[in-house]
Amino acid sequence: MEEKEISRAVIKRLPRYYRYLGELLDSGVERISSNELSDRMKVTASQIRQDLNNFGGFGQQGYGYNVKFLYHEIGKILGLDKTYNMIILGAGNLGQALANYVRFEKRGFRIIGMFDVNPQLIGKKIRGIEIRMMDELPDFLAENDIQIATLTLPKAAAEEVAVKLVESGIKAIWNFAHTDLHLPDDVVVENVHLSESLMQLSYNITKNQRDRNTK
Amino acid sequence: MEEKEISRAVIKRLPRYYRYLGELLDSGVERISSNELSDRMKVTASQIRQDLNNFGGFGQQGYGYNVKFLYHEIGKILGLDKTYNMIILGAGNLGQALANYVRFEKRGFRIIGMFDVNPQLIGKKIRGIEIRMMDELPDFLAENDIQIATLTLPKAAAEEVAVKLVESGIKAIWNFAHTDLHLPDDVVVENVHLSESLMQLSYNITKNQRDRNTK
Repeated sequence: MEEKEISRAVIKRLPRYYRYLGELLDSGVERISSNELSDRMKVTASQIRQDLNNFGGFGQQGYGYNVKFLYHEIGKILGLDKTYNMIILGAGNLGQALANYVRFEKRGFRIIGMFDVNPQLIGKKIRGIEIRMMDELPDFLAENDIQIATLTLPKAAAEEVAVKLVESGIKAIWNFAHTDLHLPDDVVVENVHLSESLMQLSYNITKNQRDRNTK
Repeated sequence: MEEKEISRAVIKRLPRYYRYLGELLDSGVERISSNELSDRMKVTASQIRQDLNNFGGFGQQGYGYNVKFLYHEIGKILGLDKTYNMIILGAGNLGQALANYVRFEKRGFRIIGMFDVNPQLIGKKIRGIEIRMMDELPDFLAENDIQIATLTLPKAAAEEVAVKLVESGIKAIWNFAHTDLHLPDDVVVENVHLSESLMQLSYNITKNQRDRNTK
């Protein structure tokens, strides 16, 4: 199948469709028109049709969308029909918080190992997941099939660890370290920069205050 | 001053400029051309010039940018010249992880209270910040000047708590609950949906695998 390049903006919206469809499914809704979906999601119906047309449409004239079918199709597009083995590098507060999220597991993201350099954490378990020392990482990677590495370690250590992971064959990194990683093109990186999200909030607070003052 | 509407894409890039300029400042660099900045940040020089022109430019022909000046100006645009009092609603793992981030404090985001419904957490302190019961929230809001409320609580509780916060005068919400909040237009909401970020990663993993298989 020839695949056209889907824009990042569309991809960013897909998980939100998936979430709304999942909620509809849970509440027993079997089909929905793009207008009704539009009302709920506060995006235009034409945006919804356009987004879904990237993947072949899924809608039927006069019927709308079959919720269960669309939910599963979007799930497949998002790669949620597979399971992923994941490790967490950096078992501090954030790493432990992520390890405790049962929801990831339900979606097929299985956290099977955690690593840190702090010897006080050796052997500690988070939801049954053992914290190992960083020097055990090469052996662990050799013995296990890992698809995703999550970096919740300090900025200064992140790049070096990421490079090692990639050398061991890791192709996907979920990066919480506050730095941009420089990795080969075939490695997928998804950044979560919490400070930057907070700065966008303070930008908007500041802007709103100015707007109120000038009214 | 007449203010033009700045696009969300530009605003999303500002914290990244701020981060790079901060790093340059730390390493003693006093001035930088848009070309050099472009090399480091992997965005085009014309993008940088365009982005900064939204705020009046800051560059000088033949000189480039004064790093310290630009850092402080972007900081002001982002509202980082002020301090914000912040509370965290939901003192579970993620709430505690956020409370432990010292970096937020350094940027002017002071976490001064945490709230939860779990009685086992009463009186527990995270980095000196006391966890209080949710029913103490109204009094706490009346007695303290809070600018930002962080929601790290279950989806089901988020909307109700958010509505109460807004009724008490809160105008900015940092939302980690996996739901869209329906709040008045003058309330600023910044969402961090971790599951959606992870789904974007699995989308790209799946896409890369397909690309490799078709090569």
